[in-house]
Amino acid sequence: MKNVVFFGASGKSSIYIVDYLVQMIDSHNLKLMLCDRNTAVLDSSIQANAQIECVDLDISDVEKRQGLVKQADFVISMLPAFLHVEIAKDCLEFEKNLVTASYVSKEMKALKNQVLEKGLLFMNEIGVDPGLDHLSALNEIDQIKQKGAKLTRFETFTGGLLSPESDNNPLNYKFTWNPKYVVIAGSSGAVKFLQEGKHKYIPYHKLFRRTELIEIEDYGKFEAYANRDSLKYIDLYDLKDVQTMYRGTFRRPGFGKLWDVFVQLGVTDDNFIIEHSDQLTFREFINSFLKYHPTDSVEIKLKHYLKIDDDSEIMEKLRWLGIFEQTPITLKNATPAAILQYILEQKLKLEEQDKDMIVMWHKFVYELNGKIYDKETSLVCLGENQKYTAMAKTVGLPLAIYTRLYLEGKFDHIKGVHIPSFKEIYQPILEELKTYNIEFKEQESILENT
Amino acid sequence: MKNVVFFGASGKSSIYIVDYLVQMIDSHNLKLMLCDRNTAVLDSSIQANAQIECVDLDISDVEKRQGLVKQADFVISMLPAFLHVEIAKDCLEFEKNLVTASYVSKEMKALKNQVLEKGLLFMNEIGVDPGLDHLSALNEIDQIKQKGAKLTRFETFTGGLLSPESDNNPLNYKFTWNPKYVVIAGSSGAVKFLQEGKHKYIPYHKLFRRTELIEIEDYGKFEAYANRDSLKYIDLYDLKDVQTMYRGTFRRPGFGKLWDVFVQLGVTDDNFIIEHSDQLTFREFINSFLKYHPTDSVEIKLKHYLKIDDDSEIMEKLRWLGIFEQTPITLKNATPAAILQYILEQKLKLEEQDKDMIVMWHKFVYELNGKIYDKETSLVCLGENQKYTAMAKTVGLPLAIYTRLYLEGKFDHIKGVHIPSFKEIYQPILEELKTYNIEFKEQESILENT
Repeated sequence: MKNVVFFGASGKSSIYIVDYLVQMIDSHNLKLMLCDRNTAVLDSSIQANAQIECVDLDISDVEKRQGLVKQADFVISMLPAFLHVEIAKDCLEFEKNLVTASYVSKEMKALKNQVLEKGLLFMNEIGVDPGLDHLSALNEIDQIKQKGAKLTRFETFTGGLLSPESDNNPLNYKFTWNPKYVVIAGSSGAVKFLQEGKHKYIPYHKLFRRTELIEIEDYGKFEAYANRDSLKYIDLYDLKDVQTMYRGTFRRPGFGKLWDVFVQLGVTDDNFIIEHSDQLTFREFINSFLKYHPTDSVEIKLKHYLKIDDDSEIMEKLRWLGIFEQTPITLKNATPAAILQYILEQKLKLEEQDKDMIVMWHKFVYELNGKIYDKETSLVCLGENQKYTAMAKTVGLPLAIYTRLYLEGKFDHIKGVHIPSFKEIYQPILEELKTYNIEFKEQESILENT
Repeated sequence: MKNVVFFGASGKSSIYIVDYLVQMIDSHNLKLMLCDRNTAVLDSSIQANAQIECVDLDISDVEKRQGLVKQADFVISMLPAFLHVEIAKDCLEFEKNLVTASYVSKEMKALKNQVLEKGLLFMNEIGVDPGLDHLSALNEIDQIKQKGAKLTRFETFTGGLLSPESDNNPLNYKFTWNPKYVVIAGSSGAVKFLQEGKHKYIPYHKLFRRTELIEIEDYGKFEAYANRDSLKYIDLYDLKDVQTMYRGTFRRPGFGKLWDVFVQLGVTDDNFIIEHSDQLTFREFINSFLKYHPTDSVEIKLKHYLKIDDDSEIMEKLRWLGIFEQTPITLKNATPAAILQYILEQKLKLEEQDKDMIVMWHKFVYELNGKIYDKETSLVCLGENQKYTAMAKTVGLPLAIYTRLYLEGKFDHIKGVHIPSFKEIYQPILEELKTYNIEFKEQESILENT
């Protein structure tokens, strides 16, 4: 019997993983330990299953956490990204293999040699973005390379958005995953990418004004902004000839211009505490980022400061969000980012009947036999309801399928700290995802003869 | 005999401290150990003095460094601010007293209880800014309190600038102290202050556009931007009734608008490495922060991106600085901030005949017997030459005088991690500074009858 210990099992993006693992219990002789702060939210059928143990766990309880890791044959972490490294250190100590859906952090990368020495495999970036983007792009790139072609340009964009039928607010946006990460998106450091052979850098305070528009058949236009460090994937994808390497995030058009207001004000900062935050209103909070004036209104000060026209759509959107209201903030000692999240959640929460949507788009330009080809592939995945979201599905299934294949011994030859850049990983996962209707549309054209 | 160990003794701001201590050698029976990376630059008369030992030291050589601390009766650190904490930990271990001219860092503050337990005194912020600003403001505030008046407003600004006779470039600025700290100034976190009873916050990317103008008699206009966290000094200065508390930095008018170009581009970032920086020119470096375009020039892209008019003075200044030139950058693996410093140093270095200037200005508004008073005090200190700068004088003398008084046993009753907020510290230092022509001008007026 194999014991799978799953940290973060009751999180928003874990439902498809839990369901997938439950189905494997008999065929793969599994025991599941589902751990989270509050596992009571898990289905009663799960609570009743004799092969499943639900464990309420405060992740900072080292002894209890390590007790769980010790018992594991395999560890899944779907915790918030910054917590993975604690689990990873436990896995190293007790020699357990690990999978996460998050970016390889500096701290995770630093464990590489120790993981190799102990003959372990810590797989990361196997959710949707990062994750499905890697799997699908690498599969395409592999085929391009197989032809003997030279890949010169690669762009990839992903967005967690609203299904068109639920897209009913002025922002064309609601929180379809952890809102904290939406609020601080992009703030972790300068964005880096390669364009036409030139390295390009964008500071956080310009990120949401450096957008481009992409149209996807049947779904209209999307606005893309650059996502973190694209440069490191040149090596990870083994792209020697690439001149453009750009990873980005999709929103609906107009989002960047609105979000830039928050960035410019400074209210997305998660690094300091607002004094007496629980004594402020939304309006007073916004005012604390504007110049003092004895009589000028918060609205006119904001418009003047950020050069927003009176008749701009932005003001309508800001008013709709309620940022100028005298509504009390009930958070104590909160950061600006936490307060902004609190304000936005009043209007941008998914409602019961709302469905979400994942959109992914890749562009590959390659040279073969004197011709330049342009291949674009795209995926749209719609959520079923508030629980079975497209986000949960596309994050969860790649990780779940990986877990099954891993437990079947398919990756025993791979050791170290990795992302899924192995053909024997991405090919079978992509195949199986098709059975869940996760499949890319393709179109290809010849751009020019060289 | 008392052994004074001085780390950073050959730094730009240390000359007045060294001279002051040398004069004390006989009267106070001192031995001086002057330590720095390269002490060969110290005067030959110092090298020849039998009571002085010059020690070349790599500060990361823990054994040698601790060997020096062990021998000390008193330790001075004029090292770059981030290095103080290592010295402070050594001082704690070997039970030595310490003085620095830098802000109390989180790490320094964290040592407080241990310092108290061992009965030691770690004095900080006793240079010019922070330092002389504290001494002079607290002395004034003390007098206001003595009168039974209520202080409602305190503003203080300091600038390290050019003496009018050396003020001969379009920026009205040259590097009169460590250029690295000029380049990254303000980038360490959100700026905080209190204005008319409201907490105000400014993010780094808006800091240089939130300026105000102050005129100082005989010296013209200065532009001020907010400096770090002013809020913490409300408690440290014990200002219960204050409604406005604002600490700021002076530059000459127009500096903020120019510097904002660098901030907006992202080239003041010291947190990531520019790929192949040694293969770029100044122009290519700037271009890497602008959008790709096959034919548009760097100049037009920058003007469009930052909404700079064709006939703006900013473009003239940027051209004069040489940022559009195809001059090679010879720095390997450098951060944007390091590269910007390199570019600016070509034009903004002090020339041999250049003299610098320190300007400090305080404003106190207080209520007494139904009247509101406005008191403004100001100091201008001019440098003598490139070595005996106003910066070195105003940073060094407060610390040097403190050291003498400390060695004379005047502060034996004070223990802990502190800034010079004690009357028995600031009064005698201010008195002695007058003998060096460091003295404030005052003017006072009645604003209104309440």
